[in-house]
Amino acid sequence: MNRPMIRYVLGSVLKIEALLLMLPWLVGMIYRESQAVYYVAVASLCGLFGLLMTYKRPSSNVFYMKEGCLTTALSWIILSMFGAVPFFATGEIPSYADALFETISGFTTTGASILPDVEALSHCSLFWRSLTHWIGGMGVLVFLLAVVPMSGGGSMNLMRAESPGPSVGKLVPKIKTTARILYVIYLAMTVIEIVLLLVSGMPLFDSVTLSFGTAGTGGFGVRGDSIASYSVLQQWIITVFMILFGVNFNFYYYLIYRQVKKGFSMEEVRWYLIVILTAIAGIFLNIRHLYESGFKALTDAAFQVGSIITTTGYCTTDFDLWPGFSRSILVLLMFIGACAGSTGGGMKVSRGIIAVRTLKKELLSYIHPKSVKKIQYEDKPLEHDVLRSLNVYIITYVILFSLSVLLISLDEYDLVTNFTAVAATFNNIGPGLSMVGPTGNFAFFSVWAKILLMIDMLAGRLELFPILILFHPEIWREFFSKKQEREKAKQKAGDKN
Amino acid sequence: MNRPMIRYVLGSVLKIEALLLMLPWLVGMIYRESQAVYYVAVASLCGLFGLLMTYKRPSSNVFYMKEGCLTTALSWIILSMFGAVPFFATGEIPSYADALFETISGFTTTGASILPDVEALSHCSLFWRSLTHWIGGMGVLVFLLAVVPMSGGGSMNLMRAESPGPSVGKLVPKIKTTARILYVIYLAMTVIEIVLLLVSGMPLFDSVTLSFGTAGTGGFGVRGDSIASYSVLQQWIITVFMILFGVNFNFYYYLIYRQVKKGFSMEEVRWYLIVILTAIAGIFLNIRHLYESGFKALTDAAFQVGSIITTTGYCTTDFDLWPGFSRSILVLLMFIGACAGSTGGGMKVSRGIIAVRTLKKELLSYIHPKSVKKIQYEDKPLEHDVLRSLNVYIITYVILFSLSVLLISLDEYDLVTNFTAVAATFNNIGPGLSMVGPTGNFAFFSVWAKILLMIDMLAGRLELFPILILFHPEIWREFFSKKQEREKAKQKAGDKN
Repeated sequence: MNRPMIRYVLGSVLKIEALLLMLPWLVGMIYRESQAVYYVAVASLCGLFGLLMTYKRPSSNVFYMKEGCLTTALSWIILSMFGAVPFFATGEIPSYADALFETISGFTTTGASILPDVEALSHCSLFWRSLTHWIGGMGVLVFLLAVVPMSGGGSMNLMRAESPGPSVGKLVPKIKTTARILYVIYLAMTVIEIVLLLVSGMPLFDSVTLSFGTAGTGGFGVRGDSIASYSVLQQWIITVFMILFGVNFNFYYYLIYRQVKKGFSMEEVRWYLIVILTAIAGIFLNIRHLYESGFKALTDAAFQVGSIITTTGYCTTDFDLWPGFSRSILVLLMFIGACAGSTGGGMKVSRGIIAVRTLKKELLSYIHPKSVKKIQYEDKPLEHDVLRSLNVYIITYVILFSLSVLLISLDEYDLVTNFTAVAATFNNIGPGLSMVGPTGNFAFFSVWAKILLMIDMLAGRLELFPILILFHPEIWREFFSKKQEREKAKQKAGDKN
Repeated sequence: MNRPMIRYVLGSVLKIEALLLMLPWLVGMIYRESQAVYYVAVASLCGLFGLLMTYKRPSSNVFYMKEGCLTTALSWIILSMFGAVPFFATGEIPSYADALFETISGFTTTGASILPDVEALSHCSLFWRSLTHWIGGMGVLVFLLAVVPMSGGGSMNLMRAESPGPSVGKLVPKIKTTARILYVIYLAMTVIEIVLLLVSGMPLFDSVTLSFGTAGTGGFGVRGDSIASYSVLQQWIITVFMILFGVNFNFYYYLIYRQVKKGFSMEEVRWYLIVILTAIAGIFLNIRHLYESGFKALTDAAFQVGSIITTTGYCTTDFDLWPGFSRSILVLLMFIGACAGSTGGGMKVSRGIIAVRTLKKELLSYIHPKSVKKIQYEDKPLEHDVLRSLNVYIITYVILFSLSVLLISLDEYDLVTNFTAVAATFNNIGPGLSMVGPTGNFAFFSVWAKILLMIDMLAGRLELFPILILFHPEIWREFFSKKQEREKAKQKAGDKN
């Protein structure tokens, strides 16, 4: 195990966090808030640790899958542990466990909150809360890769562990360029949303924070009623941008580089839109009678569908009061999730497509056992390895999900609360139904349940395995074993020959 | 498609049903019930159709997988359609759709009922209701194979489509002998249970019907409160036998043929017992404070765990009133289900074991990417094909389950009712929670929801694909195509060379 390299990456992550923490400090200075000082203090602390950890450059930058996973998991945990300190230090969240929950919920773009009253927070804390979404959406390690030079294979292992979806497409041969392109698209779209919201008459602070929440598909708002009290136009702008940020970013890459046809032939994007339109239509027909105005019903249906399928989690209405069919559609959308390669969570549309095709192929094989056709996806036959890892993902997903629901039920709340609390955190959505519905929050859970949900949020964001690996004793045996290091050195020498 | 052969098998199934329908007639004669006449009438009808359909023997008995699946699905549907007639004709179930629901629930050993008052039924109808469990438990086609001579490969395709579990083990080379051994074990164990219940002081009628329900892991009782009003000793006898009928029947085969060591080394049986004991312990600790007597708490915990994991569905208490943790354990057990090769439903313990090992292997592969070890099961490396079909099964299961929950929510009941109604029928259990809990029944659902649940029950019992195939247009194109037949004839000629 290349421990010096892990230390170095973690140090770099802390240095980035130090810089990021200066932003809420600035916001606090503008609003003349006393809480701002804590942000600059924690920033200094992060910076100090970061500098110490990156003082010595590692001699080898060889990085295998295991180091990639471990580093990714540890990065996110360290990031959250430091990021939670200001909330706690300012006294705005009196319990550190709750502050950590809120921060992990932010970085993983979940948006599940333990705060009963969001509006009581200072501007700097609200800003930091929304900024975590923006950072977590595209991933801090992807950012690192865009900025810090690293050797080829290793960086791919980092990016693969952090990026959502079944397969990481390198847009261009150099991973650094890919990471930069992604961040530029991400930044540009965020800015466009901010500008549009400003033009629609929204205050600057709200425009920026809500755009961060939309871009990262996070869901933290700055008002107690989430998005309900903004104008209909503003709700539609956010609806459209939520859906846009749930699209596979390769699509935008193709558009920019004038491969329009290639972009529009992406099956995942097509099915993503079909699912969204179908869900909106289904819910609209189901809730129409509850509204006086058909347009208002459509606005609410579209907003909630866009919010849930992209796993953002903003709301404009208490959908826990909707009829059962609409709620069932929303619960199903929670699991489907957004496109792979977007900032959204969930199982991803591409996995859904492949799963349905697997089923179809199996059925056909009962009728024509001799026809051995590979499953087609995006006009290419799917490789065995992709299928295998999809299967493993689904099995792991089901096992972890069931285990989480079982464990959380020790808290003795109702089944719908338990089930949707896990669904909403595991899929990085935010609100669920019943006690964790749009008008509720996660504060009432016990500390143990909160720890479990934090693990679920991290596991969901990092596609299960980087977090799961932390619970495998073998990884720690490797980590602390000196013998392994010597073997690695030998292997390295061998690789060079 | 070998249509003459399909007709012949379906005819044979009807002939068997004619004989079986004579039994409730006999019971009705003993109790001097007027309803008995309907049973003999329907029996004659079945016999007549059966004779007509088997009058001409098919010229070829070649039977492929598609024919196997189609015949299995059609057999179960025809069996249920005729089996439902007496309930309807006697006026005891005034709607034919409800009668069909009750009969499919019987044959698939689900035990979900639409009857608000079981005790209002005549003895002959109660007997027929329980007898459907016994027939459905081991399978009517397995019975057919034990009795009717058929060519080798074809019968395997029939048995594979009907038997629960990921792989059908032929105990002995000849499938006919395997089927006979299975039925002899089944019959013997049922008789032992009847005798034990009689000795414990239970009336003969109750002993026989309840034993049928236990053996088939069905769950239809003869009293309004299921098993609650029987003595504690009788409850324990049923508990033990429910668990015994959930064991892989290969285990008993090994015991009988003095391969005791081989039997006890079966991983599935070991894990099945471990899961049961853990669940009983967990629930016992969780509900202990609700009871004055610890022994009564243990009795109820053991009974409900045995009933749910084996997918029987008897109850001695209203577990819908239990604390959330206990209810979550029960819901989880619903999905795990019994052993493969038993009469129980659900996903099967063996699938669970393999799924967990897949997850473990994947995790290890992140740490040691170069170690390529096959997953071990029952001391043998798992073949690629078994793994693949397990994956497909789980994916299909998840898709069908989600779709069913979505569709049933059109009826606008609460989410727990919808979710557990689908879980209880798809896994062939019987009672769920909330409105379909131990004190409820399925009568309130709309006709469409009932049809959906009937499909779920059949799909669950026949391991998904034989029922799903009915919805694939290709199978009907094949069925009605003459060209295919000519090709088949050619192929057959080719096979003979």
